[in-house]
Formats: sequence, C-alpha cells, structure tokens
Amino acid sequence: MAGSTFGELFRVTNFGESHGPAIGCVIDGCPPGLALAEADIQPELDRRRPGTSRHVTQRQEADAVEILSGVYEGLTTGAPICLLIRNTDARSKDYGNLLDTFRPGHADYTYWRKYGLRDPRGGGRSSARLTAPMVAAGAVARKWLRERHGVVIAGWMSALGEIEIPFVDAAEVARNPFFAPNAALVPRLEAHMDALRKAGDSCGARIEVRASNVPPGLGEPLFDKLDADIAHAMMGINAVKGVEIGDGFAVVAQRGSVHGDELTPAGFASNHAGGVLGGISSGQALVVRIAIKPTSSIRLPKASITRDGQPTTVETHGRHDPCVGIRAAPIAEAMLALVLIDHALRQRAQCADVHLAQPPIAASTGG
Amino acid sequence: MAGSTFGELFRVTNFGESHGPAIGCVIDGCPPGLALAEADIQPELDRRRPGTSRHVTQRQEADAVEILSGVYEGLTTGAPICLLIRNTDARSKDYGNLLDTFRPGHADYTYWRKYGLRDPRGGGRSSARLTAPMVAAGAVARKWLRERHGVVIAGWMSALGEIEIPFVDAAEVARNPFFAPNAALVPRLEAHMDALRKAGDSCGARIEVRASNVPPGLGEPLFDKLDADIAHAMMGINAVKGVEIGDGFAVVAQRGSVHGDELTPAGFASNHAGGVLGGISSGQALVVRIAIKPTSSIRLPKASITRDGQPTTVETHGRHDPCVGIRAAPIAEAMLALVLIDHALRQRAQCADVHLAQPPIAASTGG
Amino acid sequence: MAGSTFGELFRVTNFGESHGPAIGCVIDGCPPGLALAEADIQPELDRRRPGTSRHVTQRQEADAVEILSGVYEGLTTGAPICLLIRNTDARSKDYGNLLDTFRPGHADYTYWRKYGLRDPRGGGRSSARLTAPMVAAGAVARKWLRERHGVVIAGWMSALGEIEIPFVDAAEVARNPFFAPNAALVPRLEAHMDALRKAGDSCGARIEVRASNVPPGLGEPLFDKLDADIAHAMMGINAVKGVEIGDGFAVVAQRGSVHGDELTPAGFASNHAGGVLGGISSGQALVVRIAIKPTSSIRLPKASITRDGQPTTVETHGRHDPCVGIRAAPIAEAMLALVLIDHALRQRAQCADVHLAQPPIAASTGG
Amino acid sequence: MAGSTFGELFRVTNFGESHGPAIGCVIDGCPPGLALAEADIQPELDRRRPGTSRHVTQRQEADAVEILSGVYEGLTTGAPICLLIRNTDARSKDYGNLLDTFRPGHADYTYWRKYGLRDPRGGGRSSARLTAPMVAAGAVARKWLRERHGVVIAGWMSALGEIEIPFVDAAEVARNPFFAPNAALVPRLEAHMDALRKAGDSCGARIEVRASNVPPGLGEPLFDKLDADIAHAMMGINAVKGVEIGDGFAVVAQRGSVHGDELTPAGFASNHAGGVLGGISSGQALVVRIAIKPTSSIRLPKASITRDGQPTTVETHGRHDPCVGIRAAPIAEAMLALVLIDHALRQRAQCADVHLAQPPIAASTGG
Repeated sequence: MAGSTFGELFRVTNFGESHGPAIGCVIDGCPPGLALAEADIQPELDRRRPGTSRHVTQRQEADAVEILSGVYEGLTTGAPICLLIRNTDARSKDYGNLLDTFRPGHADYTYWRKYGLRDPRGGGRSSARLTAPMVAAGAVARKWLRERHGVVIAGWMSALGEIEIPFVDAAEVARNPFFAPNAALVPRLEAHMDALRKAGDSCGARIEVRASNVPPGLGEPLFDKLDADIAHAMMGINAVKGVEIGDGFAVVAQRGSVHGDELTPAGFASNHAGGVLGGISSGQALVVRIAIKPTSSIRLPKASITRDGQPTTVETHGRHDPCVGIRAAPIAEAMLALVLIDHALRQRAQCADVHLAQPPIAASTGG
Repeated sequence: MAGSTFGELFRVTNFGESHGPAIGCVIDGCPPGLALAEADIQPELDRRRPGTSRHVTQRQEADAVEILSGVYEGLTTGAPICLLIRNTDARSKDYGNLLDTFRPGHADYTYWRKYGLRDPRGGGRSSARLTAPMVAAGAVARKWLRERHGVVIAGWMSALGEIEIPFVDAAEVARNPFFAPNAALVPRLEAHMDALRKAGDSCGARIEVRASNVPPGLGEPLFDKLDADIAHAMMGINAVKGVEIGDGFAVVAQRGSVHGDELTPAGFASNHAGGVLGGISSGQALVVRIAIKPTSSIRLPKASITRDGQPTTVETHGRHDPCVGIRAAPIAEAMLALVLIDHALRQRAQCADVHLAQPPIAASTGG
Repeated sequence: MAGSTFGELFRVTNFGESHGPAIGCVIDGCPPGLALAEADIQPELDRRRPGTSRHVTQRQEADAVEILSGVYEGLTTGAPICLLIRNTDARSKDYGNLLDTFRPGHADYTYWRKYGLRDPRGGGRSSARLTAPMVAAGAVARKWLRERHGVVIAGWMSALGEIEIPFVDAAEVARNPFFAPNAALVPRLEAHMDALRKAGDSCGARIEVRASNVPPGLGEPLFDKLDADIAHAMMGINAVKGVEIGDGFAVVAQRGSVHGDELTPAGFASNHAGGVLGGISSGQALVVRIAIKPTSSIRLPKASITRDGQPTTVETHGRHDPCVGIRAAPIAEAMLALVLIDHALRQRAQCADVHLAQPPIAASTGG
Repeated sequence: MAGSTFGELFRVTNFGESHGPAIGCVIDGCPPGLALAEADIQPELDRRRPGTSRHVTQRQEADAVEILSGVYEGLTTGAPICLLIRNTDARSKDYGNLLDTFRPGHADYTYWRKYGLRDPRGGGRSSARLTAPMVAAGAVARKWLRERHGVVIAGWMSALGEIEIPFVDAAEVARNPFFAPNAALVPRLEAHMDALRKAGDSCGARIEVRASNVPPGLGEPLFDKLDADIAHAMMGINAVKGVEIGDGFAVVAQRGSVHGDELTPAGFASNHAGGVLGGISSGQALVVRIAIKPTSSIRLPKASITRDGQPTTVETHGRHDPCVGIRAAPIAEAMLALVLIDHALRQRAQCADVHLAQPPIAASTGG
C-alpha cells in the first residue's frame, strides 16, 4: 500500500486500521519554529469525532491525539511529527462474519483481490476512520497557513440527499450537527435523517469548501496544478465520487463570454474559475465541491457472494453513519489545507527569488 | 515548474512551449521488450491534431513524432524513451501585444505572479498544445496495456454546450469531427459551432472516457487510489473544471440501497461505482466524465488590466478552438492510459506474489 | 526535515528523538502475506542495543518494538506497518547545558543553522539512536529477502582504529562485543578500548557488509544504480565518512587487465566489482565497506564557541560509545537490506515480464 | 530504467544512448529569471569532450548543446529546460559482434539479465557518454549557485594509477589534459599513459572535488543528508567504486581528539569533516574524493562467455579512454553542483522563515 504518503514537501504518512491498537500519521517537512501542542489539533479532531449526535455512528472514540516527536519546548523543530491516536472502542465482534462475504459498495472485494487477504475489522484499512489522522495533520497545516499567510479554510454541507442547502450564514455551520450554513433547514435535515435511519437506508451529500487569502502563484504545472492536486486529495477521501472547482460541471453549458473572469484595477470581477487559472492560484477564493456517495453499510438486505462464489445476502448492522457526508466537512478542509501548505513550500522552493515590482491588483472580493 | 513529471513508475516528463522550437516528453520506466515505432504513436497524435476541421483551430501542425531514444531494433530497451515533436506553424506575431495584458480566463496573470515572467507566444507553457506529448506517451501506455492486459480505452463527447449527446454507437465517434457517438446529432452540433464562431464566442463540453478489461487490484490506498489519481490526471488537463467517477454528482441524491452494486456469481449486477471500490479497480469498466470550460480566447471584448494596473479591453483574434472540448477525447484517453499503466506497475511491485486460488467472479458485463 | 523517508517502493519513514517519548518508523509498501511478529524484529534490535558490554554506552534501553499496524493474524496486509519503540532511559539532565554550546564534531551547529532551533537532549534528532527503527525495518526487509530470494546479509568489523581485523571465521562475529570475525584478536581489541576509555578519547572503525544470493538485475540506472543507492544508504548512517564497493579505492592503482572480472561457464572468476556492474547486481556477492569516524563525544577538552560567539571549552561526560563503529554492523546490514528489497520491488515493477531462456551462468562462488 | 531522474526539486531526467540519434536531458524546477544561453553550457561540455588529446578516446563529437525549451528572451521561465546533444560520430560497426558476448567489467551481462535485451552500440545506455547531459545540466546549476550564493566548485585529478598528484596550483588544472593541479608531474603522467596505451591496458584514477561558499544548512536528515546525496551522485558516475567525504577512510585510524573540528570565533579551526556535520553543510568547503576503476575496454584479451554459455575471449578494439578518470573531473563537479542546487531549493522550501539573529562565525578558511 505504497500510496500512504500524501504531499511532496509537507509529507504526511498515514498508518493504522479501524480496529487495530492505534491510528496516526507522521508529518515530515513541517517548517521549524511553529508553536504546536495537542491543544492546537484536538479541536479539529473533535469536529470530526464519531458519536456526537444521533445522526452519526455511535462508536465512542475520544480521538485523543498525542504528539510523539518533532516538537521541543512547544515549537516544531523541523523533525518528523508523529501524531498518535489510540483506538479505544473497537468491537471486533461486530465484524466477525465479514471475512467470507463481500459487502456491496465496500472495498472488501477489491482489497482481497489486490492483497490476497484483508483485515476485516471495521473495514480495516479502508475505514473512514483513517481520515482522523489527516484531520490532525491538517490542523498543523492550517495553523501554519493561517499564521504565515492568513489563509482561512471553511467547509459546509451544501446538499443532504435531495435537499439543497442554500448558503445563508457561516456562523450556523458550527451550530448544528450537519455543518449546514442554514439554520432554517436544520429541522428538515433532522427529519430526513431520522426517516432514513428508520428505513435502514443511507443517503449521499455534497460538501463545499472554500479557502480565502490563498497567496497567488501556488500550483506546479504541467501536472501538479493546484486544482489537479486538490482533485487528487478530494477524490481520495472515502466515498467521494465527484470533484468540482469553481463553476464545475456548470461550465459545460456556459459561454466563454460569460465564464472568463474579467480583471479590473480593483480585482477580479467574478470567480467562475474558483481561484485557479492555468493550475495556479489567482489570489481569489478557492472554491471546491465534492459529491459523497450514500453509506454502503445499510440494514436493508443486498445480494452478494461469498469468497467461494456462492450467492448470499448482506444486511449490515453495527454502528454506522447513515450519511458519511455529515462528518466530511472537517476532512475536506483538512485535505485542502494539506494541499495548500505543500504547494506553498513548493512555490518558495523554486520561486523564492521572484519579486514583482508592484502587483497590479489586490485579491478580489469577487470570490 | 517542478510538476512536469507524471506518474511514479511509468514516468512521463513533458517539455516545450507552444511556439518554441519543439515539444516532447521523456518516458522513464517503460517495460522492456515492447515493440514500438513511430507508427504506433502517430495515429493517436493525428486524432488530436489541429486544423482537421473548420470547428477547431486552423493552426497547421503535422505533429510528426520522432523517437530519439529507448528503442533498439524495434523494441523498447527499458531505457528512457524521448519523443520529440517539432513545432512548425508558430506565428509569434499573433501574440506580440499580449505581454502587457492579462487575457481573462487565461493563465497569463497567474504565470506572471508565480514566475515573475512568462513566455507569451501562443500561451507558452500553458497552451493546450502541451497535451500532444501526453497523447504520444499515452499511445505507448495503451499499447502495453492492450497487449499485456487487453485493456481498451474509449472516449467521446457526451455534451457540447447545452446539447446533450446520448450514446448511440461507438463506431460513430471516429466518423465526425466532434467525437460524438451519435450520427443523428452531428448536423445540430455543426450548426451550433458555426453559430458560435460567427458570434465570436465559445462553449464548454463534457467528455466521457471508459476503460474495459482493467485488471482488478489497481490503486494504492490511502492516497494514491485509482480514482484519486484519475482525478489528478483529468483535472490537470487544460480547461477541465470537474471530474466524476461512476455516478459522480448524481450520488448526492441516491440512496445506499440503490447505489451499492450487488455481486452475483455472474459478476457485478450494476456499475454505479464506475469500476472502483475503496480506490481499487474492481474489474468492471472504469467510467470517467470531465467538464471542460469554454475557450477563453474569444473575439468578443472582455475587460482586463495591463501589467501596470490600467484598465484595458481584450479581444482575441488569431487561431483558436471555439470549443477545446472537441479535441479533448484523445487527451482524456491518453491520461487514463498513463494512470492505468503506472498503477499496473505499482501493483505488481508490491503484490506480484499474491495468488488467489480462484477468483469467484469474472469481470462484470454490468459496466 | 523532509528527508526522513527512505526508499521508493518499500518506503520507511523514521520519526523520533533520542530523549523524546518514543522513536519508530512506518513501513509503506511491504508485500502482503509475509508472516511477521515482534519476535522477528526484536533479535536484530538486541544486536544493536546499547548497554550490552563495557565497550559501548551504558544507557539502558530495552528497545522493545511494538507493531501498531499493518499486520493481521500474523501476516502483513500490505498496509503501512508502524513500529514503535518507547524511550525509557532518557536522562535529559545529562545534556542541559548544551543548548548554548556547539560540541565539536557534532551536528549541534549545523542543526541550529538550518532549523533555527534544536532539541539538545541526547543529540535530539541527530542521535545515532535513530538507527534503531532502521534496524527494525531492516529486519522486515531481511525476512522477505530471505524467504523470497534466499538473500543472506552479514556484517562485521574489519578494523578498529589502527587495528586491522583479518576475516577468519564468520561464526565468531556473534561471539564477541566487537562483531569481529577473528577470535584471536579480541583481547587486543578489548585492551585497545579499555585504554581509550581511560584516556577519555575515542576511535574510528571500518565495517564490511556482504550480501549473497542477491538476484541479478537489481539497480535502476542511470542514477538509482544499486551501488549508488547503497552509497546513499551507507553515507547516511551516523558518523560514516567513506563508502567502497568491491575493491573500492584500491581500483585507483589497478590495471584494467586485472580489475575486469572474467566470466566462465562456471561463473565469474573473481569479484573485484563487488557484485555490481553498470549499477546492476550481477548475482555475485555484494561487497560494501564503510569508514566510521571516531565518536565526537569525548572527555578530553575541545575548543568551541557559544551561541553568541564567545570562546568556550567542551568536555563531554555522560554515556557515550567510545567507538560508534562497534554497534554499526547491524545498522549497515539493515540499510543494505532496505536497499535490496526496494530494488527487488522496483525491478519487478518494470521487468516482471522479462524471461530469459536460460541464464548461461550460475551465481559465482568467486565472491 | 525508472532511475533516470536525478534530484527532488531541481530534477534532471537523462535520456539517450551512446550511438542513438541524440542524448540529452530535461531540467524541471529551475528557478525562473536566470539568464541562460547555450554559451553558458558549452564550455563545460567542451572540458569533458572526447578527442581533445591523445590520452582520451578519439571519437570526434562536437557535443554541441541546443536549448529546446524553458528559456524565453534569454531568461529561464521556470518551465522545463530540454537540452539536446546530437550524436554525430557513432560508428556502430565497431560494436557489431558484441551482442552475443559479455565484455568483462562491463554492464553487458547485467543489462541483459535485467532487461532481457540491450542496445550494444557503444555500450548503449551504460556508456559514459551519458554523463555529457549531466555536465550540461550541471552548468545550469553552477550558474545559479554562483550567482545566488557565490558557490565555486573545482575538481582535479589527485592520483593517476599509482602516481599520487599532490595539489600545487589550481591554475594548472586547466592547462594539461589530465586536470592535474601540478605542472611538474605532467610529463610523468604523459609517459604513464603512453606506456599503458602501448600495452593495451588501462588504469584507475582518483578525483577530488571541492565546493566553497556553500551556505550552511543544506542537507535533509535523516536520509537525504548532504553527504549521503553526494555519495549517491558520485557512486552513480560510471566506473566509480568509492566515495569519501572529508578525511574519508583515514578516519578509521583517527582519534576523536584529533578528528572533531574545533570552533573559534574566527571560524572552524580545521576541516576533517569535509564541510558536513550531521548531514548538513557547515559553511566550510565541501571535500569529496572518488575512486575510478580502470577502463574495462582494453586490447589485452580477457576470458568471457557467449550468450549461450560458451567460453570465448574478448579483446576490445575501437576508440576508448585508457583512463576514464582523465575526463571525470568535470563530471564530478557537475554532479556536485546538481546535489547542491537541489538541496538549496529543498532548504528554502522548509526553512525559508528561519532567521538567526547573528550567526556567530563566518565560514571558515580552515577548509
């Protein structure tokens, strides 16, 4: 599984399984001199933590993070930072019978085809629990981005199943279990989830993430364009099936006369591009949207086969999120932060000597 | 621009500018013993070539490829394969005044902010012309994938602007300049493009690519999942603003009871997942869709600013594609081929010793 | 410190500091299905462990390794393997005054110049203690190499200070604290070290490592040649100042008529090359030698300066190895194993399809 | 041959074969804004060029370099720089019979075992001719290092066969065909080579390279230490069998009281370390030595076998260097430059924010 490292210069190596003794990550390449303690990381983990409302899995995990290395007297030293999270509520009995059956929509079949064996406990390595170390690493990245560049990253739910959630108020996101920027819709979202849970079914969601104050110049064409690396990061999150930047799929039906964002001495006049031109950040807000599929673990029965090819039926009981999208906003934010810090370091590696006399425009408010 | 290498084991390094003396690439890591000649590559370049219909740019480029290394007596040797394409129809005069103005929707502004200077001739490094070497490299990848695994990759246009193009007949794709799998719609597409050209405007498009006979087991979780790497490849193509795998954004409104593809002794019963589960290929057809924005080079005037911040107006004359999506299918196919060969090599590096007694199902026909 | 990952496909990321809570590593890319338990790793750690004779540091560390991930029911799953070693005997008081002084021969000055701050406890990140996780990772690599290819790796001390140690008997290496293949010399080595310790001084050493049954074909020219990657691995070990392959520096005065190893139907007739030709393994024994400098931590006073540039004198008390070379053989073996497994995986990634009708020669006994 | 890219951030991808149409490289990651023309590169190529004295191969190659990309109006743009060198004097007939025989000391056997086939013309990919593109890339690196940091890199021959060449005068290096810093010895070197040529034999050499004004702080522990990466670069040069940093193998017999370089307010008092402490540059002169084996292509007969295992005899006629070390100084300089620029970029990526109030010492004159 040689794909467990993320990033080129701010490199995060993830390890662990859902029901093993611990999960965690090692960050290599963090700039030295950053003030860092567990208290900088824990709040982000708490936003993603299971068991915080009736609409998510009831697994109880404190997700308490421990910094094992790379920090001396409260400052990062430039050495690798190992972040460890012990698993505490791992009931392996819930998953005992799954070794011989492939759950539809899950990675059971493909892991077995690839590796010849798999850890079935709670999805093992393919569990969404493995996003927790990325949220932890993302917290380190965000702190540096905020202190060094003033970058602010915010994510929210913009659709739950068929319910569109218009953006009304950023402050609402933290006030409801759905990360919905819209207080008026919360009762409807709750009723939707309650009905789903009763039916033993699950639903999809759409998450939007934005980053503002992103310095212009981030992104490494031809292939490691900023938007390409964001797409890589986002599509790699469990259950994501689509990624959009800026206007996304709406561009198909647009005209060039509409899409191209005009420049004025006061900045860009619009942000159809979503903050990236030619794969390089423009200084406008980065705008990203992802589609999250409905949870595959449902109570309703699905047809499947056993490892020796016999037909069978799978009903998944145990503790699952009926909509994994509900806890996805902190994850998407973290992955975006990891892409941005990596590109900030890459940018200054090659272009630290570039000094423009006087950039003609400030970052736009048109984002 | 340290992002000009694509892939981990089948590594393609791209070089060149739209109006420089040559463009090309170096492929490092190609398996030895593959029969290879220019004639294996040229047909793919010809599919992407400009100037082949009135609906694309009238620039005349033979795009003749030369193999400079890595092949001895008709076989790849395992050494790097340098593929060179000379630029022949580079009229720099068309672009002379662009150094001081930022074309809306183009990379002019961001390249300048990043590098402090830029090659303005024909978009320089940010030109879509740089996809030609990738099509050439993709031809090498496809040949190996086809000979070694029987993989077949096919792309087509599924929407041109607001015109949806239902899939009718694969054989039609090669018979019209739009890569449209639907002969009945071609007159309407032609009329649409003629009107756009007359109006001096441009439009977007949606391309779909599928790969069949993909071996199961490709993809490297946690981050280099097959779908994540496909998203990286696709979002990195010029003008792409969205990527979907399988049902894509439609999953938001789906139920888990519908989405999860059931398994039967005869194979998967459906392919909502688009051939990837947990980031690993399932053996079903890979299904990818991309959104391509309308060309930014249009005759209609757009507001912009000069390098010293003065307001100005840009009208782009010269030779441009009114819909860059028209030539995008061969590019998307090539990028998909490059992702697949890279993962085929990565897979056998780690898992060559895995031998399953008897895989329970054949690849699905449900894709 | 973005250089804390070793290897391309069998990737080992090292973390920790000498006196932090723990040290360890994450192995990403290990082939699945390898039987693995702590008991496979601990014996190698015990060979390198401090405090086992009066000739090495008296720090008492059990160096007990814990497998945190990547193994399920006794088999590697292909997921990252996190190996954790808790530090137990970390007396930070020994090093309290070192923050303001640069110890001659140590990394104090350069770490401070690079990172602007440093963890001074026991050398922090630059301590040779950080080789322990590499020995642990090397144990995993060796197990796979032995089971899959029959590779055997052995290291020993070939010189302690000015005392040359002719190779007499491989079985002796494990029987004395010096890893000396020569029982008759052990009393002299002991006397040498006792005198050094009394004098408060230290000495250098030379280590030789050999690997037999290495499959031919490993190594990735032009740059990641097998010998180049071995040199990288060896020169990166703490205190190493020179690396030789085969005849090493003796080749300077050799003639081509002597050096070039002749081939016979029975194999190579000699092994001046040390098992590598053109950067690729020949199937002969790999022969590597490294020069290890005398420990910089000595009781004898040395001139230095403080952080604000004032002259001072440094005498290092505390617990140190008077010859770090004494414990270096297991480290060099481990690093060689890590290079070999990485290249074995790289080799089959590109060349798994190569099948030679009948290799003309067996591996040589001439090594 | 996926090892044909050198460097992490200043990445050089090498391509070509000795007798193919062309050799060359692509540099990705070069900082933008560097003034660059062929005239900056050609002089370095001319220093390495064959046919310039009777003591080297008589192959006549102009080694004229062409910049194909990455430079606009005389400045690097940040885009990949493709450097092309056409082969002009490639007499394939000299090598026709070599496909079926393995030349002792050459890579014939190992390339064939690895790739299953090989390009035999002039050594194909394993020819030392492939160092020419590295010398070209090194010229770009040197220019940036000199202009940005004042780095000066100089190499010379310190031993030819058994003749030691004491360093007398740097200015002499450019005045004789041996790169010998010692005019008095030149007649003896000439006589030595004339005798060797007459005998049909070859000899080894030792090259020393130094870099001064290297900024402190370069090197990425734990594995990509500056000395480790130098060892990787040097051992990867054709025919190199040993690498030393600073005192090299002499440290084995040294005492710690002698070896550790003392610091004084005026700088380091000595340079046993060779400019690297803990894998990080100290600001002192970098001191590197390499051992180069005698050329394997000699007229004297050597025993070998054919591809089907029959004994045979090889005598190599054609055009060869009787001591490849003679032209190696420019190569070693170039590789050192490539390591340094890569680490200069890596250093500022992670540590650009580090600002020390007042470094206590200037760089030493003790190097």
